[in-house]
Amino acid sequence: MKTLAEKILAAHCVAGELKAGMPIEIKIDQTLTQDATGTMAYLQFEAMGCERVKTECSVSYVDHNTLQNGFENADDHQYLRTVADRYGILFSRPGNGICHQVQLERFDKPGKTLLGSDSHTPTAGAMGMIAIGAGGLDVACAMAGMPFSLTMPKIVNVRLIHRLPHGVGAKDIILKVLSLMSVKGGVGKILEYTGEGLLDLSVPERSTICNMGAELGATTSLFPSDENTREFLTKQGRAADFLELKPDADAVYDEVIEIDCAALKPLVACPHSPDLVKPVEELAGLKVDQVAIGSCTNSSFTDLLEVARILKGKTVHPEVSLVISFGSKQVLRMLSRCGALDDLIAAGARVLEATCGPCIGMGQSPQSNGVSLRTFNRNFYGRSGTMSAGIYLVSPATAAASAIAGVLCSAETIDYAKPEMPDAYLIDDTMLIQPSCDPAVEIKRGPNIKPYPAKAPLAETIEAQVMIKVGDNITTDHIMPAGAKILPYRSNIEKISEFCYSQIDPQFHDRCLQYGGGWIIAGENYGQGSSREHAALAPMYLKIQAVIAKSYARIHRQNLINAGIVPLVFEQPDDYERIAMLDTLALDCGKLAEGQPLTITDAKGFSFTVQHHCTARELEILRAGGLLNLIKSKNQKTEA
Amino acid sequence: MKTLAEKILAAHCVAGELKAGMPIEIKIDQTLTQDATGTMAYLQFEAMGCERVKTECSVSYVDHNTLQNGFENADDHQYLRTVADRYGILFSRPGNGICHQVQLERFDKPGKTLLGSDSHTPTAGAMGMIAIGAGGLDVACAMAGMPFSLTMPKIVNVRLIHRLPHGVGAKDIILKVLSLMSVKGGVGKILEYTGEGLLDLSVPERSTICNMGAELGATTSLFPSDENTREFLTKQGRAADFLELKPDADAVYDEVIEIDCAALKPLVACPHSPDLVKPVEELAGLKVDQVAIGSCTNSSFTDLLEVARILKGKTVHPEVSLVISFGSKQVLRMLSRCGALDDLIAAGARVLEATCGPCIGMGQSPQSNGVSLRTFNRNFYGRSGTMSAGIYLVSPATAAASAIAGVLCSAETIDYAKPEMPDAYLIDDTMLIQPSCDPAVEIKRGPNIKPYPAKAPLAETIEAQVMIKVGDNITTDHIMPAGAKILPYRSNIEKISEFCYSQIDPQFHDRCLQYGGGWIIAGENYGQGSSREHAALAPMYLKIQAVIAKSYARIHRQNLINAGIVPLVFEQPDDYERIAMLDTLALDCGKLAEGQPLTITDAKGFSFTVQHHCTARELEILRAGGLLNLIKSKNQKTEA
Repeated sequence: MKTLAEKILAAHCVAGELKAGMPIEIKIDQTLTQDATGTMAYLQFEAMGCERVKTECSVSYVDHNTLQNGFENADDHQYLRTVADRYGILFSRPGNGICHQVQLERFDKPGKTLLGSDSHTPTAGAMGMIAIGAGGLDVACAMAGMPFSLTMPKIVNVRLIHRLPHGVGAKDIILKVLSLMSVKGGVGKILEYTGEGLLDLSVPERSTICNMGAELGATTSLFPSDENTREFLTKQGRAADFLELKPDADAVYDEVIEIDCAALKPLVACPHSPDLVKPVEELAGLKVDQVAIGSCTNSSFTDLLEVARILKGKTVHPEVSLVISFGSKQVLRMLSRCGALDDLIAAGARVLEATCGPCIGMGQSPQSNGVSLRTFNRNFYGRSGTMSAGIYLVSPATAAASAIAGVLCSAETIDYAKPEMPDAYLIDDTMLIQPSCDPAVEIKRGPNIKPYPAKAPLAETIEAQVMIKVGDNITTDHIMPAGAKILPYRSNIEKISEFCYSQIDPQFHDRCLQYGGGWIIAGENYGQGSSREHAALAPMYLKIQAVIAKSYARIHRQNLINAGIVPLVFEQPDDYERIAMLDTLALDCGKLAEGQPLTITDAKGFSFTVQHHCTARELEILRAGGLLNLIKSKNQKTEA
Repeated sequence: MKTLAEKILAAHCVAGELKAGMPIEIKIDQTLTQDATGTMAYLQFEAMGCERVKTECSVSYVDHNTLQNGFENADDHQYLRTVADRYGILFSRPGNGICHQVQLERFDKPGKTLLGSDSHTPTAGAMGMIAIGAGGLDVACAMAGMPFSLTMPKIVNVRLIHRLPHGVGAKDIILKVLSLMSVKGGVGKILEYTGEGLLDLSVPERSTICNMGAELGATTSLFPSDENTREFLTKQGRAADFLELKPDADAVYDEVIEIDCAALKPLVACPHSPDLVKPVEELAGLKVDQVAIGSCTNSSFTDLLEVARILKGKTVHPEVSLVISFGSKQVLRMLSRCGALDDLIAAGARVLEATCGPCIGMGQSPQSNGVSLRTFNRNFYGRSGTMSAGIYLVSPATAAASAIAGVLCSAETIDYAKPEMPDAYLIDDTMLIQPSCDPAVEIKRGPNIKPYPAKAPLAETIEAQVMIKVGDNITTDHIMPAGAKILPYRSNIEKISEFCYSQIDPQFHDRCLQYGGGWIIAGENYGQGSSREHAALAPMYLKIQAVIAKSYARIHRQNLINAGIVPLVFEQPDDYERIAMLDTLALDCGKLAEGQPLTITDAKGFSFTVQHHCTARELEILRAGGLLNLIKSKNQKTEA
């Protein structure tokens, strides 16, 4: 009576109980990184002192920063290539494709676990595996052989029945799920797809559904591994990787959703959220300025072949710019060889590289107030690079039909044959570089790539001044802003720390340097928002030793601990008021013990009590001066 | 006893004498613009008040700003599309290709004249026509039916003898010419190619040679229109456009250069100048980090087919990033249909859009200290976007051979068949939009596209204060800086004027607004360097009425007159010393007359004499408040 998710998790669980809401730790078989998160992940991995990765398969992709406006991107690519060579990671060269598409083609295996430093890593759930997105340090730890910690999710069963009508695609299924569950509806859940409807869905179609499950906030999504899985793997020359996997017939789910595929209509997610879903016919006639096809959601060979069949012999509307980015080198070559690429170009498509491209705002920003139809997964405000534009998420068929018409419309009435799976996929792994694992490999670092900063173990005593005092609901965007100006420094903690707190307190960076770091005092819900690690790493670099807040957002608290910064909580919230900027606070760190409150003295002549709420393991991390130090010292002991 | 250049110029000369060094005016048959210069050219054309273009053929291309990081590029494309529709200009949609390649395929005609707002417009000389690069306003004037003024160049005969060896290409011929003449050697000259060696050169090969003639500083380059021309035009479905054209057998040239093609070796232009030419073998073994193939110099079907033949069945060296940008949709489709595109992708090429791309620094910046081999025309310091990189200019064959080897090497010893011309070119003009010339067309202007600013006719008296006083050798880069931060504002004179003189005097802009404009005082050689019009348009917008300098660079003086700013010269250079910032100077403009000096009084209590050196026509322009006003008023009179 087990679900498939439970079966795979049970086979990988190394600690904890598979009970929804309980902490568990699972063994990770595979990892992937992309270049925008990968440089920091590998800098962290390097700092751990491992001799080589300990996973079954780890792949480093380059698919995000490929426009290369300035030296930083090419330098990152070179770093990623050499660090992969040194530590046993496969390197997917720029041009080889989008990580999730290539991973599906060449590496995903039924029954395995995959951790990736990209939020759309759950795409691999299409292969009947547990695939989870995570931060760079989590992936670095998995590469070092450590289990991944998570809270056991609830398992939701999505039952698909009947067959999709003509012109309706897998994208419309996941848009339907989004309309039912909302962008928060998947939090703490795994979506497990079953039902006879999935017999009609190929692995690439299933990957579209799993991919966009990320937009539900779900931990992951997955499909069984069945005859369609065997067919896909066989046609990819990987029949040996097949393993049949399905839930028990009497599996018990926490929740069940049923979707009648035959009743589905083409859907569109309206600005600015993937769950603002309407039927296409409700918006039919909306004038379209740009159509963008591709991304990890919809750039498989069959997706783009469907687009080519709809466009064949026609011309893109004169007022529409149609751009296509291909999922992989395999997809691009197969389209070229079967003539479909010629059909796309003939119709007026602008051919972009096989990368993420416009999906992550790397070029192809629409015109002012433009309407852009995209086969992508996210339509957040401003993500396209044009703040005044409206982004609508649709299926490839709807995108192609609308590109010709110049207005939003479905492909339901267009006469074309939906592509079948090819007889065989074209296998060409020449752009995947096998690592040498040679310790003599020179890891090349451009001037913007700096080693992960060293941090000393926790001192006996923290006696230092308050560097900043902030209020409630401070976000990680306040602590470490993003944006085009700052993102190129993601491989350079020293440089990026110049921007730490810059929008609230431009003197923070200089003050920390002047006083040698110290304390942060904060209000409620400190560190909410994005999970970005740099909001802990930059303060760590600036020698912030501890934070005292009224309360914390969960992920940022974990990031602080991982960075070796002690996260303390006022026992009496009113004590917050007594502390001022540049006060000298003292804490005896020797007294840190599970469940024990601590006393902090203010040199102004008073003292107050704080809690740390740390588990034994968290205290171990803090004492080591952060998770990397702990791992490094353990590895050294093991190898000694 | 006429050269071919003289014959074509004679057929188009409407004023002046065809004698080297004398001013002439020629009728312009065709114009082209690209998007980076086109928006301003069409804003200027709009300001002229014409009902439609008066040329035989005017085409507006989009090939420069196609990355679209932000709304500005897409807005420009939309403006260009609608303004073309309104005024009778063919619009080549983004994705249709690089202006010079598409122009060659579809529009260039033997015996015609072409003026283009791109310095590589002479590419069309391959078709036996006079093709000249010029500023946007010059092209706008040509579209309005006005003749183009130039100084009659000297005619240099470049005689090509014997046949190129295997692995040596047209690019090596022009690199040889550059090594002989230097980047200044072509100034004031037209290069006319003759000799039996050119019988072996197809029109696309000839276009490579004419294209890079721009790097000599030449006015233009040209080839005769012969059987090879007939073949190319016929295969492009344009046999009717053929016209045989050649110099008289006894034509007299100002200079003769002979090149023995059979003796040529593969050449490379080293950083940072196209004339720093060495034999490839002298640098053989240089480690290469990037190879970039394409650009208006070397992106024809046969160029890229040659690359595909060299790469077929091989894999790009693991440490080399190979990027290819295609010349046109025609090139891309033909490569796709014959399987060569698949060969390129299979070998590991990164496929970029059919645009200028990395040649103009739009992406693909090499890594720090990287060595980048490029089939392009310019390797100026910093142009690639990576200041520390070294750019080497080579032929497509050398580029392809080196991409495999990972080091600079020639293709001489590689066994491959040099591509012949195809039996027929694939003709597909669906991405060329025919204009409606409908006055009701709505011209769409994004928020960054502002009308060309209005300027009043010359006042009776100029009585205003000195806004800035600068020294000798001020460049147009000082007056109007370029760079990624400022370039997006090229369609917006008001906005770009904020950066006028910003690197010398950040208060200049605000001061002009505060005082309502006034005078500029300058030393020798004022306005040297780039020909950019914005160095006159921004001061015009800021109500600069006149400049008094010790002397001027020729093009900037013309740009000032065109913008309605009076360019005066100190009769006594020492008077420069007497004038200070914010002095109030007065000039009676009623006394402006050919050959007459003028008196200027300084409110501090002295006066001094200046010269204007203006022709009657230049005075007419100044009195009208600039060339656009003059044209506009004449058009209104004609049409009234």
